[in-house]
Amino acid sequence: MNSEVIMRYSKDSVIYFGFLNGKNLSRIEGDLFDGYTQTGVIDNLSEVKTLFPYEPRQIFAVGRNYKSHLKDRDQPKRPEIFFKPYSSLLNPEDPIILPKDATDVHLEGELVIVIGQKTSRVSINNASEAVYGISCGNDVSERRWQRGPDKDLQWWRAKGSNTFAPFGPVIARVPHFDNLLLKTQLNGTVVQKQRTSDLIFDVPTIISYISHYVTLWPGDIIFTGTPGNTEPLAPGDVVDVEIEDVGILSNPVSRQ
Amino acid sequence: MNSEVIMRYSKDSVIYFGFLNGKNLSRIEGDLFDGYTQTGVIDNLSEVKTLFPYEPRQIFAVGRNYKSHLKDRDQPKRPEIFFKPYSSLLNPEDPIILPKDATDVHLEGELVIVIGQKTSRVSINNASEAVYGISCGNDVSERRWQRGPDKDLQWWRAKGSNTFAPFGPVIARVPHFDNLLLKTQLNGTVVQKQRTSDLIFDVPTIISYISHYVTLWPGDIIFTGTPGNTEPLAPGDVVDVEIEDVGILSNPVSRQ
Repeated sequence: MNSEVIMRYSKDSVIYFGFLNGKNLSRIEGDLFDGYTQTGVIDNLSEVKTLFPYEPRQIFAVGRNYKSHLKDRDQPKRPEIFFKPYSSLLNPEDPIILPKDATDVHLEGELVIVIGQKTSRVSINNASEAVYGISCGNDVSERRWQRGPDKDLQWWRAKGSNTFAPFGPVIARVPHFDNLLLKTQLNGTVVQKQRTSDLIFDVPTIISYISHYVTLWPGDIIFTGTPGNTEPLAPGDVVDVEIEDVGILSNPVSRQ
Repeated sequence: MNSEVIMRYSKDSVIYFGFLNGKNLSRIEGDLFDGYTQTGVIDNLSEVKTLFPYEPRQIFAVGRNYKSHLKDRDQPKRPEIFFKPYSSLLNPEDPIILPKDATDVHLEGELVIVIGQKTSRVSINNASEAVYGISCGNDVSERRWQRGPDKDLQWWRAKGSNTFAPFGPVIARVPHFDNLLLKTQLNGTVVQKQRTSDLIFDVPTIISYISHYVTLWPGDIIFTGTPGNTEPLAPGDVVDVEIEDVGILSNPVSRQ
């Protein structure tokens, strides 16, 4: 099946979508969510630049969604949602850039959901139908801006600064995503490791809840939360977020 | 000058941009920010449906930015930014829909800035060059979700629910926007009235500050903050946000 893994990529400065099969990318034309055709052109993975796999209209994220990450904080009564902006999106392999005045930037490896259809007020039972596929994400966070004594009123730059949303490398159309291993490595050492079955609010619950307030659009993405401990980042580091059956999202770290 | 006021509108289910001159809309083709041509076609304002004037990639808003709105809260040390999502955008004349479980939804009349060029790390002195034009906005807010005893961790649905970002009716390319009268009426009674000269952080300061963390894109919009008292909304209400030299953004209110 070569229709299961989607990649967005550039070659000679032109951007394409393709289905990945081994090292071959079968280039398509049209809209991923609204009808496309196979062009018959095959690109080789080694000759392209991998981009984050879709440009979403809206980027949602969930806070405090693994018990292992809560520490002494209360378990939330409902999914705690926030937004990340377009400019925070980052391609695989491109550097996470620590802002000049940032002092405590952490990694957060996460399962990312890609929405496939316009979705409003969907029930939990039907919410899985809204999922097009899944990907890896890193909800990069500046802790001082997020919750230090001089924190911002909202998490806009704590979670939304440029390059704070690495996303990719592919969209995988897996049949199930409720028990996949999520693993984050910092410089080759495993620092987060948990199964998505440990999410406090599972994917259908998150989608249903969001959709009762904010309509979801095809290509919208949801960062579902990070497990366990997060680690601070320094220039020269490399972060790998891996999800079973999806792949590895790898980004180096540099300073502005 | 018919190049000073831009409107987005639909006619026979097709969406156009045009320059407004009296009741005439001079239809254009191409990208508002990246080269367009006059088509020579004139539409009549009375025969079209006015839409919010651009579909932005990113919607920023500023909290606590007029002293008259602060009450007993501290004046912020820096612009306090947050995001609103695409789905919150609302056309002029379309209804603000109070969510089923919302109990305390307020109006917030605001000056909206439309960005004209990609902008990153711009100085305050040069920030005005990033402004394409201005518009009216209503930063509709559910106070219980925003700051009640059971408030959400972030303002995602308090400020981001569907229809919570009325925007329009036009983009006005005015030469100055630092001393315009902003006036909000609820059912014909003036409930907010202040000049934009009273902003705590002025437009260049806001743009410069955001751009040091999050790159701005052509068409991005910034809600700059609301003055004075805000009023709760009920089904059947009509809210008019008026800015001198721009126009009136009018929306009725209904219940989901």
